[in-house]
Amino acid sequence: MANFAWSQRILKLLRQMNSFYLPGSCRTDCFRFEIDGAQVGWIPPHVAPLLTRYPEVFSPPQDGAVTLCPSLDSYERRSEGVDAILQTVRRECSLSSLEGWRDERYSVMPKFSDPPLMWMERAATCLFGVKRYGVHVNGYTVSDSGEVSMWLARRSATKQTYPGLLDNVAAGGLAADIGIKHTLLKECQEEACIPAAIAKKAHPVGTISYTYSNDEGVFAESQFLFDLELPLDFQPRVGDGEVQEFYLLPVDQVKELVATDDFKPNCALVVLDFLIRHSFIEPDSEPCYQELVAGLHQTLE
Amino acid sequence: MANFAWSQRILKLLRQMNSFYLPGSCRTDCFRFEIDGAQVGWIPPHVAPLLTRYPEVFSPPQDGAVTLCPSLDSYERRSEGVDAILQTVRRECSLSSLEGWRDERYSVMPKFSDPPLMWMERAATCLFGVKRYGVHVNGYTVSDSGEVSMWLARRSATKQTYPGLLDNVAAGGLAADIGIKHTLLKECQEEACIPAAIAKKAHPVGTISYTYSNDEGVFAESQFLFDLELPLDFQPRVGDGEVQEFYLLPVDQVKELVATDDFKPNCALVVLDFLIRHSFIEPDSEPCYQELVAGLHQTLE
Repeated sequence: MANFAWSQRILKLLRQMNSFYLPGSCRTDCFRFEIDGAQVGWIPPHVAPLLTRYPEVFSPPQDGAVTLCPSLDSYERRSEGVDAILQTVRRECSLSSLEGWRDERYSVMPKFSDPPLMWMERAATCLFGVKRYGVHVNGYTVSDSGEVSMWLARRSATKQTYPGLLDNVAAGGLAADIGIKHTLLKECQEEACIPAAIAKKAHPVGTISYTYSNDEGVFAESQFLFDLELPLDFQPRVGDGEVQEFYLLPVDQVKELVATDDFKPNCALVVLDFLIRHSFIEPDSEPCYQELVAGLHQTLE
Repeated sequence: MANFAWSQRILKLLRQMNSFYLPGSCRTDCFRFEIDGAQVGWIPPHVAPLLTRYPEVFSPPQDGAVTLCPSLDSYERRSEGVDAILQTVRRECSLSSLEGWRDERYSVMPKFSDPPLMWMERAATCLFGVKRYGVHVNGYTVSDSGEVSMWLARRSATKQTYPGLLDNVAAGGLAADIGIKHTLLKECQEEACIPAAIAKKAHPVGTISYTYSNDEGVFAESQFLFDLELPLDFQPRVGDGEVQEFYLLPVDQVKELVATDDFKPNCALVVLDFLIRHSFIEPDSEPCYQELVAGLHQTLE
């Protein structure tokens, strides 16, 4: 049955998660972040002046672009040159994103299939609008009578980001030089105590992509999605403390929850994609069906 | 294993199918086609002068838009007013697209979830860049040992469009006022003699969207996709003569074929989406994985 209010809440979520594309976003005021003539991100207007104080690393803005100095001509030199500046900025400026410094290195490249041009501290990527990649796992069960339920995680109340909100059973960012399936196995083990013997049965089912901006910066993300049917007698358990509790919920209840503020927004999109692929949303009864699918795959040209 | 040549051929196909978005396309020269202030299409530069000869229906271009005259203030008046002009244009101008007149009415609206503002002859939609919707079915089998094969159709050599090319087991455009599942059941029966008792087991799995332009016009399309696992002892049969033959091919062979010119391009995208959702393409071995997914979901803002 069509549920107009549900559709409208989901469309609103998709607009929020793609706010960078909307008229009036900071996009028109951003500087392109270029390395060797190739764009790898968008630098928000409040960030550019902090960077161009360091002309030994960042060339002054020209034609709407901030570039790295040509002397930084290798992966290592670029990475270390930028990291040194970011360490200074972190000490001297109050940028809330850098307060979440994680010592996690993310690869920076124009497209995922391109060789990385440098690495960058994860917490700094939003200051450069550098594309981030991650892995999200839909953990679910199918009862003997065919009823589908999903395992959801409740994030720890002390997490830096989105504390206390609902999350996928396991998820994590893709660090430099680490494989996608490897990341999946690691996050399944660490976050949900799902052993590799089970987690390796997860199979890839696509990606979602979105770009939003806020006071901190530009968040351009793509997530690699996996489905993992969990045995009926298996229960995820709290692992590294990022999660406070796991719930097994009937898929109809999950469908209601993704349209609420109780869900971490990008995890709600992951579940939305699951609901569409598994026919829990049908095009004849959901008038916005095609818009929902399109909203899960917005990409920057 | 990564197959660089395959990836490159698929990326080229995705670029072709989204050529309207590329720099240098006719997009910058197109007029917006607007009804009641809402954009419903793009009119190519060679078409606009043919339409504005009829000021009783089309207002002269203004601010880059061609609009319907305000006197056409209802669904019926707009539909009949435009249809009368198109019948004249069809007789008096040599437009190859109108030679394919089908007497099939497509709905015209800004978004699928909006109420239709008029209907338009299917063959004319590309002259207005009006968004078209259709249904495509992935017919496949799973052997007792778990091997997946796909049923593909070879289009009749006498088809108006894409004669002799490979196609999905069943597909069809969505006519005005006809439901999506209804269209699926009809096309399964007519094109492939798949009875409703089997076809109704098809389940929706998402959409693909793309926009290309060529000498004929602008083709903005979204397809509603369904997976249909066919019984091992069932064979599709040639129905209405749109197909000359059906083949059951191992999925590996299908994967090779989608990267060849032997496939009708949009049907190749349907199969690509199937291959991704069913993990026949894996992100760790396909560097362009995320680009492939994104290329299947390009939409006009």
